[in-house]
Amino acid sequence: MINVVKIGGNIVDNPEALLTFLKDFSDMPGLKILVHGGGKEATRLSERLEIPAVMIDGRRVTDRATLDIVTMVYAGLINKRVVSLLQSLGCNAMGLTGTDGNVIPAIRRSPIPIDYGYVGDIDPASINSGFISTLIEEGIVPVFCAICHDGQGSLLNCNADSVAAAVAQAVSGFTSVKLVYCFEKPGVLVDPDDNSTVIHHITPQLFEKLKEEGIVTKGMIPKLQNALQCISKGVNEVRICGASDLNNDRGTIITDN
Amino acid sequence: MINVVKIGGNIVDNPEALLTFLKDFSDMPGLKILVHGGGKEATRLSERLEIPAVMIDGRRVTDRATLDIVTMVYAGLINKRVVSLLQSLGCNAMGLTGTDGNVIPAIRRSPIPIDYGYVGDIDPASINSGFISTLIEEGIVPVFCAICHDGQGSLLNCNADSVAAAVAQAVSGFTSVKLVYCFEKPGVLVDPDDNSTVIHHITPQLFEKLKEEGIVTKGMIPKLQNALQCISKGVNEVRICGASDLNNDRGTIITDN
Repeated sequence: MINVVKIGGNIVDNPEALLTFLKDFSDMPGLKILVHGGGKEATRLSERLEIPAVMIDGRRVTDRATLDIVTMVYAGLINKRVVSLLQSLGCNAMGLTGTDGNVIPAIRRSPIPIDYGYVGDIDPASINSGFISTLIEEGIVPVFCAICHDGQGSLLNCNADSVAAAVAQAVSGFTSVKLVYCFEKPGVLVDPDDNSTVIHHITPQLFEKLKEEGIVTKGMIPKLQNALQCISKGVNEVRICGASDLNNDRGTIITDN
Repeated sequence: MINVVKIGGNIVDNPEALLTFLKDFSDMPGLKILVHGGGKEATRLSERLEIPAVMIDGRRVTDRATLDIVTMVYAGLINKRVVSLLQSLGCNAMGLTGTDGNVIPAIRRSPIPIDYGYVGDIDPASINSGFISTLIEEGIVPVFCAICHDGQGSLLNCNADSVAAAVAQAVSGFTSVKLVYCFEKPGVLVDPDDNSTVIHHITPQLFEKLKEEGIVTKGMIPKLQNALQCISKGVNEVRICGASDLNNDRGTIITDN
């Protein structure tokens, strides 16, 4: 069994919270993979360099300059910071982008109808899961950021939630997998302002009902759809929980039934 | 046999020269490892961010802000650019810093007599050569930048020539090794201004004579000392040559006799 853990940008942005989380991740028994988000450091660096944010429909375009920024911050600064901290905690981490060992090929998103630039999507079936398996057998803990590549010499900015989902689906081909999304809330909430209203268990049937009744909110719908897709593609369990709940069973567990 | 190839910052800085070099590196038959230098991109980024260069005795100090810069540029931007280009050329490259898989532990340089900040030195004996061997057996071409770590959670800025030398010495424990330093000159020159004056073969005895006679110049002395140390520590051959001479036998070859 392998745990694939995704840690969000809010935790990555907070040095104290990050160290606490990485201690918990180090203590987590068994085989594991970490996927980290980006946080606000890339935006801050863009601002300091006065690189104008190109926005379409409220979403940032990854132009050439922005691709360089996210490559520097996600694959360089954050990924190596996380790996060196994990190493200091006795966890034999190794940082990876999708281009390293061609482990996660991506496809540049179609410029039609909207060209978001160097942004990629991942087909889980194209992931080099044999190489991930080899690394894990060597006692390595892979640490992925969401920079992948198109195989033609271009890096691509991908979504870290999608990378985690794709990696979890890919490794489910050779072992059982639990996928854990750690974020700033304790789970999927009935009332977004009340942390005590965690929904403990969601199945595909319950998701449809919660959606119909308007209980799961806009931002949570794609997160849950993503989780349910993982379940339908071989991942045994998805858990959405707070960063401090990595080593307990709290949060929202999504399973097939 | 493994070729360990070091490519200098001048080539890394020139997109056209870099692509030409990477094509040659891709075409190089047999097992291989690449180590790349930094180039001027880190200095340019420091200037754009108005991070003042702290200098002692004419040498730049790697303070906290500078360590972040070199980590972003060397481990992020340049390393991933090189890896994605090699992947597009059919070479299964994987980018590594010394902290990934704890492959190159370094020791922070003593602050006495001069504190150069987050700068590290490498003991070849501490390199995790078994892990490098495993990667190579998997068909991977490791691509190192010169960012290593102290094992206590701090990254360290190391010298790329020294990383290449240490990696070559480490892998000489399990196979024969040729170390190739590619730079902007065609080899060690009798007359630094005349590229036709390459010294084709240097042994320890000849080095002493060249040094005595003042034929090898100041900057070349540490490079040759480094090469001779590699030879004395198990590396079979060191070659210093132009970037375009990777796949021929030109340049200066340094051997034991």
